Amino acid sequence: MAMNLAQKLIQPHLASGSLEPGAPIELVIDQTLTQDATGTMVMLEFEALGLPRVKTEISAQYVDHNLLQTDFKNADDHLFLQSACRKYGVWYSRPGNGVSHPVHMCCFGIPGKTLLGSDSHTCAAGSMGMLAIGAGGLQVALAMAGIPFSTKMPKILGVKLEGELPPWVSAKDIILEMLRRQTVKGCVNKIVEYYGPGLDKLTAMDRHVIANMGQELGATTSVFPADQAVRAFLRQQQREADYVELAADEGASYDETDTIDLSTLEPLIACPSSPDKVVPVREVAGRPIYQSYIGSSANPGLRDFVIPAQMVAGRRVNDGVSFDINPTSRQLLEEISRSGELAKLLEAGARLHQTGCGGCIGMGQAPASGRISLRTVPRNFPGRSGTVEDQVYLCSPETATASALHGEITDPRDMDMDYPSFTEPVQLSDMRPLLQAPMDSSLIETVEVELEKGPNIKPLPDFESLPKILKGPLLLKAGDNVSTDEILPAGAEILPLRSNIPAISRYTFSRIDKDFYQRAMDLKGDCFVVGGENYGQGSSREHAAITPRYLGVRCVIAKSMARIHRRNLVNFGIIPLLFENPDDYDKLQQDAELELDNPVDQLVEDQPVQLKNLSSGELITLRHDLSEEEIATLRAGGLISRTREEHPDIH
Amino acid sequence: MAMNLAQKLIQPHLASGSLEPGAPIELVIDQTLTQDATGTMVMLEFEALGLPRVKTEISAQYVDHNLLQTDFKNADDHLFLQSACRKYGVWYSRPGNGVSHPVHMCCFGIPGKTLLGSDSHTCAAGSMGMLAIGAGGLQVALAMAGIPFSTKMPKILGVKLEGELPPWVSAKDIILEMLRRQTVKGCVNKIVEYYGPGLDKLTAMDRHVIANMGQELGATTSVFPADQAVRAFLRQQQREADYVELAADEGASYDETDTIDLSTLEPLIACPSSPDKVVPVREVAGRPIYQSYIGSSANPGLRDFVIPAQMVAGRRVNDGVSFDINPTSRQLLEEISRSGELAKLLEAGARLHQTGCGGCIGMGQAPASGRISLRTVPRNFPGRSGTVEDQVYLCSPETATASALHGEITDPRDMDMDYPSFTEPVQLSDMRPLLQAPMDSSLIETVEVELEKGPNIKPLPDFESLPKILKGPLLLKAGDNVSTDEILPAGAEILPLRSNIPAISRYTFSRIDKDFYQRAMDLKGDCFVVGGENYGQGSSREHAAITPRYLGVRCVIAKSMARIHRRNLVNFGIIPLLFENPDDYDKLQQDAELELDNPVDQLVEDQPVQLKNLSSGELITLRHDLSEEEIATLRAGGLISRTREEHPDIH
Repeated sequence: MAMNLAQKLIQPHLASGSLEPGAPIELVIDQTLTQDATGTMVMLEFEALGLPRVKTEISAQYVDHNLLQTDFKNADDHLFLQSACRKYGVWYSRPGNGVSHPVHMCCFGIPGKTLLGSDSHTCAAGSMGMLAIGAGGLQVALAMAGIPFSTKMPKILGVKLEGELPPWVSAKDIILEMLRRQTVKGCVNKIVEYYGPGLDKLTAMDRHVIANMGQELGATTSVFPADQAVRAFLRQQQREADYVELAADEGASYDETDTIDLSTLEPLIACPSSPDKVVPVREVAGRPIYQSYIGSSANPGLRDFVIPAQMVAGRRVNDGVSFDINPTSRQLLEEISRSGELAKLLEAGARLHQTGCGGCIGMGQAPASGRISLRTVPRNFPGRSGTVEDQVYLCSPETATASALHGEITDPRDMDMDYPSFTEPVQLSDMRPLLQAPMDSSLIETVEVELEKGPNIKPLPDFESLPKILKGPLLLKAGDNVSTDEILPAGAEILPLRSNIPAISRYTFSRIDKDFYQRAMDLKGDCFVVGGENYGQGSSREHAAITPRYLGVRCVIAKSMARIHRRNLVNFGIIPLLFENPDDYDKLQQDAELELDNPVDQLVEDQPVQLKNLSSGELITLRHDLSEEEIATLRAGGLISRTREEHPDIH
Repeated sequence: MAMNLAQKLIQPHLASGSLEPGAPIELVIDQTLTQDATGTMVMLEFEALGLPRVKTEISAQYVDHNLLQTDFKNADDHLFLQSACRKYGVWYSRPGNGVSHPVHMCCFGIPGKTLLGSDSHTCAAGSMGMLAIGAGGLQVALAMAGIPFSTKMPKILGVKLEGELPPWVSAKDIILEMLRRQTVKGCVNKIVEYYGPGLDKLTAMDRHVIANMGQELGATTSVFPADQAVRAFLRQQQREADYVELAADEGASYDETDTIDLSTLEPLIACPSSPDKVVPVREVAGRPIYQSYIGSSANPGLRDFVIPAQMVAGRRVNDGVSFDINPTSRQLLEEISRSGELAKLLEAGARLHQTGCGGCIGMGQAPASGRISLRTVPRNFPGRSGTVEDQVYLCSPETATASALHGEITDPRDMDMDYPSFTEPVQLSDMRPLLQAPMDSSLIETVEVELEKGPNIKPLPDFESLPKILKGPLLLKAGDNVSTDEILPAGAEILPLRSNIPAISRYTFSRIDKDFYQRAMDLKGDCFVVGGENYGQGSSREHAAITPRYLGVRCVIAKSMARIHRRNLVNFGIIPLLFENPDDYDKLQQDAELELDNPVDQLVEDQPVQLKNLSSGELITLRHDLSEEEIATLRAGGLISRTREEHPDIH
């Protein structure tokens, strides 16, 4: 049977299950990626499980998030991660090397391999024919231990790209067009597979832009074929030998299909405060801006910096605009420095920041009160920039740069110049020598490595299994599209607490309900949370499951849930349930007393679950979409205790 | 009579007074400098005084401190400063242009001019034959209004430099030698004047290193002649026309003298946690380090980055070291980018930070717990790095780089290579076009400029004048060398509150007494503070006077006081008194009830002041060194009310 590329990537990695959409599957994981904001917890989990050393082909730990060291905490975390890498056999990428996704692609990306990462944008590596999936940290820790990754076989959405992009329109506009069509929840439980003649002029890094923000569609991942563009990319990285040609079979079919004629696209922009509020740039042109931001894993390519440099060459950034340049990798910064493009940006008035995730995760660069910020980053969820009630727009580097020059949102086609041309260099500097390689396994027996834990690094708390009767108040009723940024925010104040669950718990739901923490502390008991559609979208941070669990949340009920967060809830023993009838959402008021009788036994595959609203006396029918494996995990009280039970050998 | 250079700079700027050491003088100020951490308050004071427009030749406002925007506050402050510059006729230097001191020197420095700045390191411009003095913000605001600067004529310490520096020894080692000899209080009320044949091979930027850290000696300022090195510097800045030759008269004499034979110097290092704990590097060599930090206004020259680049070229920074590169200006970053030196640093594993003050004022780059940080910055006061109980050493770029390569403190003479040679480029890029020039004064009448005040920008509180009887508890008894970093800390958490006195007051003395704020709030009344030697050393921040005043402190009694802070106390109506007999320090216990009868009338020039210790019944004799002008200021309740009284015309 002719297979599409997604199927061809999954098939050889199946440890169990079938390619039938919805079927539970277990995937063998070849590579893992962790970053510092999630990685400290992954390493603590690896330690809690008593695991000796990773069993993957490649595991790499990047330090790219917590780079603003305003006290000892982040620096201590970096040293902890470095020691954990030495102890467990993981590559370590120091601060300054750059954002995990492009750096991993440059150093380790190999077509046909599977990659599991504790960062939701891990899917970016789909740009080079990998099956790359973001997941909760605990699942990544298990993958590092060689345990296959459990999920459900997604549907495959085939998107055919035709035609060629017009001048001033680039890869970011393609993914914004996808967001306009699909919204932030249109691709939940789907893999988006791109194919067609429109790919011919998209480089591997252009495809990275699209695959990266596939996460914003809710997709499990996105895949692109490994073709001449990927070969050229690997040659540039001095790794052409790692090239494997991969594409869908002739005549392959898809569960769903769509087509984009690239020649019809124009510059697009996502308005505040959701990546799918997409309109043509011209519709919002003229609004004055405070900031224009280039960089992040959603525009990490050399061309994403060189085109802006050529646009500003000999010009001056508007006096009112902070034009923030965030190099995505050491390799890129070296290259634009050597080529003179960096000097052009600086001469024009740009402000160069440290290589890394920076303002994209609220680590600096927060905009002024009430002012507009244009960013090439993947997300504009409320407050993610660090400024409450922010006004963040998402757009291409071309749009951001034209707007920086004019001081207002500007369609780049209005630039008084020809569209700059860009040709990828044949070869770039090799970044791997600047990563610290794992210790040779022959040495690991003889060298004792101590984990270096600063005073802010606390062990993962132990959690009890589910009670016979789950009874407690509905402690929070939230609306639609609540992101993990709202469940447990990032930002410069909170990110440094990622290795300290008791301390970071204080910020749980603080963006949407300042009193949640206090109510939970007053209660000191089991409780429920209710959400609307697409609950838990956004970042993969498992802290958004751990801290609610730490505060007593044992069950979340929503109209629908985002994949990674739903799984994180299971991993930490919180039952994710869905309304059988979405209108029942209105029947549950905050503070209502709820009861779930014998939840352990009620959870049977494909069976409804009855919830008692003790305050109103009503019975509400809920459903779940838990696999047997997930039910077993919940019964055990979470994935750590289940793993300890099932794999006593790995201790 | 033959005059030394300091006298020749002061004489033509005397609005009143004489060159007799200790005589009260008033100096006409040609130029002012403000930075963002102190400048927002300066602009609020300018506004509170009702002043229309600056009357200086040049006033320039730099944004270099509060660059980590973790929420709206810093960004709002930048916009406020930009609007104030437009309104009041001040040059505005945007974030990313660099540290005020080198940028001011490059753009506006002119031999023979006076410069008053609300930053203690303003004295750095003494490197080019200016009389450059750091002062409290309020005095800078008055200077901007054309009111002469009141101080006392300092003694002049002539330091003759002989010989030539050996390889691997550079300007930083000269000022460290001065600190070893003089300590942090050895030059209080002195101007240090450098002269002699040893100057021949010191560039203007080398001299900047020495003049800058003259502040750490407690000096009023340092001066260097304007000679061929200064001419070459101005040529490089495309401003040779601004050159004026200036030197001491033949046969000039000094109040005190010293001599340094440069050829006898070796690499030096200041140990934690004071700039005068200086020892030869070899004595502490071998201690493992976490961080090596290049940059700041205390090593801002091109050679301070190029020599490290040449040292690391083709090598790799030790895996355990964060090698932090902090470009001091846009010009410098452009230059090392174009010349390829930046690429050498990056290839070796350096971490490039945003141009500005950065970690020097605790704005990021805090070291890990208990780990050693080597820095080329001017200060290592406890906790200034952002990490409590930090281990910060001050050293030259050569020592910092050799140590980064080896992972431990290393004497650069142990490098297995020849000392790199460096020749200054004949010309560098002109930074002035990237500063925003003041509006033409012909337009100022027609264009209405609104000050842009974000929600965190609060007006300066009004303060009452002194009571008839000043009675209250000794709310804090502190030790020797309390710096303004300990009175009111900087750092990423606190600096953003600089425009909001009620909010920032909460951190008053928090480094040395966590309960001070609460005790003051409980008291809600007048109180005293006692200190030891050199009270108020360090940064010029007037917040270290404003917030104690806001919390009720009306009198500080110490064994000795640092110049700028002492004056800031006067400016905000706090009486600075000294022990007649330093042993009486031991007679005052914290919480004792103290009384100063009729302080307004007791303050007579050269008369003692009687303090009653109501708790013990003892009388303690204090003295003061207040000038008539300062006494008048205290009587009026502070400099703002006195200025309003004496200059009703400037409203």
